[in-house]
Amino acid sequence: MGRLAIIAGSGQLPVHLAQAAPDALRVGFDGIDTEVALHHRFRFEHLGGMFDRLKAEGVSRLVMGGGMSRPALDPTLFDAGMAEIAPRLLRAMAGGDDGLLREIIAIFEGQGLRVVGAHEILPDLTARSGLLAGPDPSDAQLADLRRADAILGALSPVDVGQAVVVEGGLCFGVETIQGTDALLGFVAQTPAHLRRGAGVLVKRPKVGQDLRVDMPSVGVTTLDHLQRAGLAGLVISPGTVLLIDSETLLTEADKRGLFILARRPE
Amino acid sequence: MGRLAIIAGSGQLPVHLAQAAPDALRVGFDGIDTEVALHHRFRFEHLGGMFDRLKAEGVSRLVMGGGMSRPALDPTLFDAGMAEIAPRLLRAMAGGDDGLLREIIAIFEGQGLRVVGAHEILPDLTARSGLLAGPDPSDAQLADLRRADAILGALSPVDVGQAVVVEGGLCFGVETIQGTDALLGFVAQTPAHLRRGAGVLVKRPKVGQDLRVDMPSVGVTTLDHLQRAGLAGLVISPGTVLLIDSETLLTEADKRGLFILARRPE
Repeated sequence: MGRLAIIAGSGQLPVHLAQAAPDALRVGFDGIDTEVALHHRFRFEHLGGMFDRLKAEGVSRLVMGGGMSRPALDPTLFDAGMAEIAPRLLRAMAGGDDGLLREIIAIFEGQGLRVVGAHEILPDLTARSGLLAGPDPSDAQLADLRRADAILGALSPVDVGQAVVVEGGLCFGVETIQGTDALLGFVAQTPAHLRRGAGVLVKRPKVGQDLRVDMPSVGVTTLDHLQRAGLAGLVISPGTVLLIDSETLLTEADKRGLFILARRPE
Repeated sequence: MGRLAIIAGSGQLPVHLAQAAPDALRVGFDGIDTEVALHHRFRFEHLGGMFDRLKAEGVSRLVMGGGMSRPALDPTLFDAGMAEIAPRLLRAMAGGDDGLLREIIAIFEGQGLRVVGAHEILPDLTARSGLLAGPDPSDAQLADLRRADAILGALSPVDVGQAVVVEGGLCFGVETIQGTDALLGFVAQTPAHLRRGAGVLVKRPKVGQDLRVDMPSVGVTTLDHLQRAGLAGLVISPGTVLLIDSETLLTEADKRGLFILARRPE
């Protein structure tokens, strides 16, 4: 196996990846903050230069980790390699996340780079099945879970909605491009007269979501937002959702009385 | 035909209904503000008393108009009539809007009261087909419309989403229990680096939505929120979405350069 490269975005995930693979080449992008010390940093417009660099350093596999926002691209800055792939990339950027990320994988693999998932480098970072922290969810919360899964199931074919909030049978929010924290911020603003106790956040990969580049994750900041949104807990899929800094996450959830349940959809 | 009763909620719709049917009995609920001068006001817990009053006044038809939030009910205050229907009502309140409103219609009709839609009293209040105001939507915005309709179509079977915002092919928000204005407030907070020009709000009845009690509506305040959200315009279904104060609405949309397009889904 050739050398591994980590494409590092924001948050704790790339830090864990770098610890697990200390020999990996760490690269990042201008405009994307990362807590990892990078070997190389590129403009998005210079992807051609990045591919050349990865090959020159003997990289044959890469893993993407951490948050990465969709960049505004300046076509006048494209290098030759980027100019070649830009039409595919821009077409895919007009669609949902899944389509874009599938295209990015195809582009990397067209360069002879195999894309691996963060869960392959860090298998312990995903949840095992069961109640991981906090109190047992109530029957009403389990009913909310089933309703959330019906909504996620309906949305999956149109590539929307990695997370849904349901409370007392009512849908309080659907995750869109702004992400889970923004969704929970929206739920927190729900007028009191609409609230129906303490509902649940259900977060799962969409059907067909490629976990190699886009793995749902939860961390302590998710708990902060969950608490501010007045929810009782969090349901995730075992094996396919990353627990960022899992020891602290589970301890904190216990301490705050928030449940974390890893269970497949029925 | 017996006398008409207007069950008045917030906003301009009950005002228009009261003007169009000056002989109607106007009733409302404690905790629901309305701009209509009411003949009678009831607690939600006293629905039995309301039915008796409507019958005593010779009412045989009723129309519901305006915003009405889901109330928190105090069972210790239920009158006899309410105690009888409460189990059905509470069960339905745990579900989506459609189920609840279907149940409310069934309860009214079980009392011998025929429920009519606001569009039957005020047919001129719904949109005719075509571009009603503002500039022609761009090709990108028409593509956003098609993507929004795909999302609304996927959500319809699970009784979520009377409106969706799409911009540059990306879903920026799905209407949930908090309503259209809250959805647009959420979209307004989208970080600039995620924005893709000026997208569209698409608002339609859900498949199977009973227009007699739950008709989507747009008004000048919708334009205010649309503008703050940085969107280019609004697509609605002809014949089934109420235009509140339509003359002002269309003039204002023209003035602000926001399009209003009434077009069925493809």
